[in-house]
Amino acid sequence: MSERNGPGTGQGVGVWFVGARGSVATTAIVGLLALRARIVAPVGCVSELEPFADAALPGWDDLVVGGHDIVHTSLEKRAEQLAEAGVVPHRVLASVRGGLSEVDAEIRCGYHPATHGGAQAPAAERLAEDIRDFARRHGLARVVVVNLASTEAPLPHDPAHDSLAALEESMADPARTVLPPSSLSAYAALRAGCAYVEFTPSPGITLPALTELASREGLPYAGCDGKTGETLLRTVLAPMFSARALRVRSWAGTNLLGGGDGETLADPAHAGSKLESKARGLAALLGDEVTAPLHIDNVPDLGETKTAWDNVSFEGFLGARMSLQFTWTGYDSALAAPLVLDLTRLTSAAHAAGRTGPIGELAFFFKDPYGSEEHRFAEQARTLFEWAATL
Amino acid sequence: MSERNGPGTGQGVGVWFVGARGSVATTAIVGLLALRARIVAPVGCVSELEPFADAALPGWDDLVVGGHDIVHTSLEKRAEQLAEAGVVPHRVLASVRGGLSEVDAEIRCGYHPATHGGAQAPAAERLAEDIRDFARRHGLARVVVVNLASTEAPLPHDPAHDSLAALEESMADPARTVLPPSSLSAYAALRAGCAYVEFTPSPGITLPALTELASREGLPYAGCDGKTGETLLRTVLAPMFSARALRVRSWAGTNLLGGGDGETLADPAHAGSKLESKARGLAALLGDEVTAPLHIDNVPDLGETKTAWDNVSFEGFLGARMSLQFTWTGYDSALAAPLVLDLTRLTSAAHAAGRTGPIGELAFFFKDPYGSEEHRFAEQARTLFEWAATL
Amino acid sequence: MSERNGPGTGQGVGVWFVGARGSVATTAIVGLLALRARIVAPVGCVSELEPFADAALPGWDDLVVGGHDIVHTSLEKRAEQLAEAGVVPHRVLASVRGGLSEVDAEIRCGYHPATHGGAQAPAAERLAEDIRDFARRHGLARVVVVNLASTEAPLPHDPAHDSLAALEESMADPARTVLPPSSLSAYAALRAGCAYVEFTPSPGITLPALTELASREGLPYAGCDGKTGETLLRTVLAPMFSARALRVRSWAGTNLLGGGDGETLADPAHAGSKLESKARGLAALLGDEVTAPLHIDNVPDLGETKTAWDNVSFEGFLGARMSLQFTWTGYDSALAAPLVLDLTRLTSAAHAAGRTGPIGELAFFFKDPYGSEEHRFAEQARTLFEWAATL
Amino acid sequence: MSERNGPGTGQGVGVWFVGARGSVATTAIVGLLALRARIVAPVGCVSELEPFADAALPGWDDLVVGGHDIVHTSLEKRAEQLAEAGVVPHRVLASVRGGLSEVDAEIRCGYHPATHGGAQAPAAERLAEDIRDFARRHGLARVVVVNLASTEAPLPHDPAHDSLAALEESMADPARTVLPPSSLSAYAALRAGCAYVEFTPSPGITLPALTELASREGLPYAGCDGKTGETLLRTVLAPMFSARALRVRSWAGTNLLGGGDGETLADPAHAGSKLESKARGLAALLGDEVTAPLHIDNVPDLGETKTAWDNVSFEGFLGARMSLQFTWTGYDSALAAPLVLDLTRLTSAAHAAGRTGPIGELAFFFKDPYGSEEHRFAEQARTLFEWAATL
Repeated sequence: MSERNGPGTGQGVGVWFVGARGSVATTAIVGLLALRARIVAPVGCVSELEPFADAALPGWDDLVVGGHDIVHTSLEKRAEQLAEAGVVPHRVLASVRGGLSEVDAEIRCGYHPATHGGAQAPAAERLAEDIRDFARRHGLARVVVVNLASTEAPLPHDPAHDSLAALEESMADPARTVLPPSSLSAYAALRAGCAYVEFTPSPGITLPALTELASREGLPYAGCDGKTGETLLRTVLAPMFSARALRVRSWAGTNLLGGGDGETLADPAHAGSKLESKARGLAALLGDEVTAPLHIDNVPDLGETKTAWDNVSFEGFLGARMSLQFTWTGYDSALAAPLVLDLTRLTSAAHAAGRTGPIGELAFFFKDPYGSEEHRFAEQARTLFEWAATL
Repeated sequence: MSERNGPGTGQGVGVWFVGARGSVATTAIVGLLALRARIVAPVGCVSELEPFADAALPGWDDLVVGGHDIVHTSLEKRAEQLAEAGVVPHRVLASVRGGLSEVDAEIRCGYHPATHGGAQAPAAERLAEDIRDFARRHGLARVVVVNLASTEAPLPHDPAHDSLAALEESMADPARTVLPPSSLSAYAALRAGCAYVEFTPSPGITLPALTELASREGLPYAGCDGKTGETLLRTVLAPMFSARALRVRSWAGTNLLGGGDGETLADPAHAGSKLESKARGLAALLGDEVTAPLHIDNVPDLGETKTAWDNVSFEGFLGARMSLQFTWTGYDSALAAPLVLDLTRLTSAAHAAGRTGPIGELAFFFKDPYGSEEHRFAEQARTLFEWAATL
Repeated sequence: MSERNGPGTGQGVGVWFVGARGSVATTAIVGLLALRARIVAPVGCVSELEPFADAALPGWDDLVVGGHDIVHTSLEKRAEQLAEAGVVPHRVLASVRGGLSEVDAEIRCGYHPATHGGAQAPAAERLAEDIRDFARRHGLARVVVVNLASTEAPLPHDPAHDSLAALEESMADPARTVLPPSSLSAYAALRAGCAYVEFTPSPGITLPALTELASREGLPYAGCDGKTGETLLRTVLAPMFSARALRVRSWAGTNLLGGGDGETLADPAHAGSKLESKARGLAALLGDEVTAPLHIDNVPDLGETKTAWDNVSFEGFLGARMSLQFTWTGYDSALAAPLVLDLTRLTSAAHAAGRTGPIGELAFFFKDPYGSEEHRFAEQARTLFEWAATL
Repeated sequence: MSERNGPGTGQGVGVWFVGARGSVATTAIVGLLALRARIVAPVGCVSELEPFADAALPGWDDLVVGGHDIVHTSLEKRAEQLAEAGVVPHRVLASVRGGLSEVDAEIRCGYHPATHGGAQAPAAERLAEDIRDFARRHGLARVVVVNLASTEAPLPHDPAHDSLAALEESMADPARTVLPPSSLSAYAALRAGCAYVEFTPSPGITLPALTELASREGLPYAGCDGKTGETLLRTVLAPMFSARALRVRSWAGTNLLGGGDGETLADPAHAGSKLESKARGLAALLGDEVTAPLHIDNVPDLGETKTAWDNVSFEGFLGARMSLQFTWTGYDSALAAPLVLDLTRLTSAAHAAGRTGPIGELAFFFKDPYGSEEHRFAEQARTLFEWAATL
């Protein structure tokens, strides 16, 4: 039971990371262990703020971590790399090595279409069984599955995605690869009775067949695309221009990032999901007529650091032309990891409270929120904090 | 009656600018004339936004402008200077020249301690009578006095400011200069039965003797220090860090400005008010422990342009050190002028509705709001828009 | 004879702009007229600096302007648009209207492949004759042709470009369009006995057939791609890192521009030339291993303004990771126009002095200099100033 | 003998740091040990560049380090703090611990007026003897004394500084403290027959009495105020504006720094030297009429990081107003330390070559160079590299 966030539930809650050895998951795991050991303050953890003081959230000590990954580097090794990159302090790393190898033992082999032969149905069943086994062994009340794997390209329409029946028929066909990995994970999560959080802009749970399944199983889900930097600022700043009746004429953005994320997003196909997700938000906030060129560049030497530069050109009284520029420099994993922990706690609480379908109240965390049209950050915060009072 | 903002009141409302020939007042006057002529869109005018659609605000055609100033350059000449500086478009200037000379005829000689001899009581009575005469001649329902004159230094405590009786006794003494110009104007405004808006960080109406008078006369007032640039952004951005549980460690700011404002604020005594007003806001939003060096530099070649640069250093998860920098480049007068018009309409409506004392609902417009402890921009906007529905 | 730049030559020198109604040419023409009228100082004119005091350059009064364009908007109209956009002051425009219509009368219809039928040989002859006629009518000692037309795409190799004989055979073939407009203009210039300046990154004079012709005719030429903003800064800053033994790891750039240039460069084919020209410079300065993503975005609302942002990530002692970011905001035409006038004077002087082939000493002015491998700005300046002493 | 920089001298050369336990000295020492161990590349070391390949400089292996300090924290502890702050990599620290304690044993107690009683003459003699003893024990050919201690306030004129005779008379007077610590160190250095480098803007060797002594002893010296960040960029960028005939109107700067340097410079008296040193350079480059407000703020949370922001407002052709802004973020110690090593090698070589008095060829390294009026970076680099060929 956590001392910090009210009563806690007193019972184990699982968090299952898809992409459990990635930078965000590793940072989240290191951080969870450090929070549990009381050696760091919960900076960046929204669920530790005052509005959540009385919410029935699982405590840090209640969370049990497992996951899937297609990479075999140990968590300890990954944490060392993050320490070298400045994301994890050396003193923290030293304290959590033991915990890391315990979590490592809970990571199972993930799904990758290139190495998997045959129909997707048995593959999904295997993934689901990994999660069920994890829950059984730890006697968990419930498990939240969080997708942190590499961003996938947007998906063309496929009739097999339109209904659960059609989907499962296709999944049984050894000649077909009907689901991308994120959606296969979402399917497996739902089959294992788990709530699902889509932290990337990948297709994941958004296919009609999968939302049908979530609905049938009475499971909640949240997403998508964690809002950690440039978009966070945009959803904070754009409402200012609107409330002040200032007319934004253009909003140009450049993102420089290294790490694995930089490499994935250097591929235009994968970047597509991210760029679409970002653009949708800006249009929702300011309307379609704003010129908004946006770039994501892979700059390997930046490592885990991400630098975003935005140039906002706006018009004021009597046509006066003015500008705002901002530069945001952060560690993407350090920004994302506490949100992942927050989402786990909140989605678990929603599940416990019987919530089904998309949790729009979690729009605060996402670039492209499921179940909500609200992109204004302050409104999202208010909605979240009011919802917290009901948990 | 305005077509744009609902029914209007159908009756003349006066706006009396103290500092009527300054850059902000001149821009507001040019803009009002241009709005009335339907040759510009009301960009930057908050009172034209949807939440005010049904509020009983005076229309652009209802407003009649007069004012005090100690400078004698004509409004037309001042408008030409602002056109040269890029604030007023040449085509707009050409269309409003006639209107400017009409307003010019309503500007009376202001009060300046250096040129005024004798007791302040008769000086105040003369100022008040200028306003009453203006109201009578135009058959105005009411007049809002808005202080736009140069920023004054903070005021040391003086027992004569503590009660109206003590104040008036001192004002009758020819040997004393008990009130700074802004407070003398506020006194005159109240004596003339007018609502008062303090758009600068000067002492103005804040002395106990004057709030006592406002209360006795049943008059509303609003202030202080129009929020147009760096502080606007700070009140938008600081709540983001709080809502995300990120720990701001330092927030450094530099303001470069030319124009008369630059010159006034280059004098540390005058800058004091402005710096205090800015610092109070940041402390209210983030707590006192944030290192926050702040500079205002006079850079004459920038003319009417103002450039602010802020460097925010913050800590995230696991102690990660990250930063946000922004550069804001704007025309101060173009940012302030529409707010001045908004405040005139809203304060007039509050007066008409019988409101007395500080109007905390107008905190949205100010760096250091009277009658409100709320500095978070989004909360201020919500409060303002909800209040609009009651007008 | 100019008072400012030494003796002058006392004889008329022609400058023939290809793209004479574009923003750069119009600004250059307005500026030349204003310099001649002594109503502006020669700010931005390198040839007015002290090292040129004794060089035998044509004075402002000696220059006579003509040109080609495929656009028919009058120069006066174009100058009004530039005044509206803030590039040309209204008071200057008022003083030069007469001069503008005189120059307008010297502009002839340019060449455009879409509207031109038949072989290119007669088209080139017509262009050359326009220039010869201009020179005859004004009794000019010589004419410098400066290409300021829209950037063209890079050219695939064509054997017809390899020798003058092959080229002229193809140009006689009505079924072939063997030269892009810039190269046709260069050919016409050389045929008319004129020196040629390539101010854009278009192919222009670079084809072997054309340099052969220049050589045969004993004509000098200079280029290419005027260095006015981001690249100017790069050639200033990159040598600093080298001289300080600091290791640049990445140099990312974003250019936001509106105007016609923005539109042309939004087309990836046209942007190709510009991006290649920029990238070559950086690689020459820092080596190939620097990651250097570079974008040019069309942002129409910026009008004539151009904003460039660069992020330089570098490594220092003991591997320390550090960064430099810069933002450059300027009017592209105001930066380019004085260089165009400088190049006209200098190329004319070189021609008068019997210089043939590429003038490497003018590398100072260009992103991708002909006849020089030197990209370091300070070295280019020194070379230029030393050369000035020989003129 | 170094493999990297040509032949080396094959004989021990001492470097004596005043302020040997400060951040810059510690970083220099760690770096020297790491270079000697061949575990880092000489990034940031100018003397390793090609122009120095044949210069007779001492190799890394030839340098022996000692120094004075008034602080007693061990070098190892200081290096750990710098590792924590990100300046020294953990892997490097691990490799040089042994070497650090060897150097530590060579650090003697420095001079501090608050703890020292009596006349300054014996104090100076003690400091000089420390250096002589160091040289004797290590059989050094010569020693270079480098002042890296905290910046001191500018010095009022004192007739006792005007000649060596007057100075030594005052130094013998127990009632007088005639020299600030930096000048006492310079005096001691000269008395010990050592070349002197002033890396701070403190008075140091600049007093006429001391330059007289240097001259009499035939010793060279160099300074002052290492050029590592904002000023480095200014001396690179300002010449660009001049060479392009662009008129800089204002150049505003803000420096945010933590660490001990931030604390020292937060005291306006100490900042005075630094601000004067910076301002002189800009005026020398651009003339006196440029408005140039400049701030140094102590922002403790920035630690060893320094962030500088400059806003340059300039005028181009036809009066166009344009701007350049830059943000420089670096580790001050990592920028300064390699220059300190370079200066040691170069000053030692100059001493060996019989050079006396100020070494103007080292202006490249300094904000306010002794013996040179040249502030333009590229010219300084050329002078340095040409001089290297003579060594």
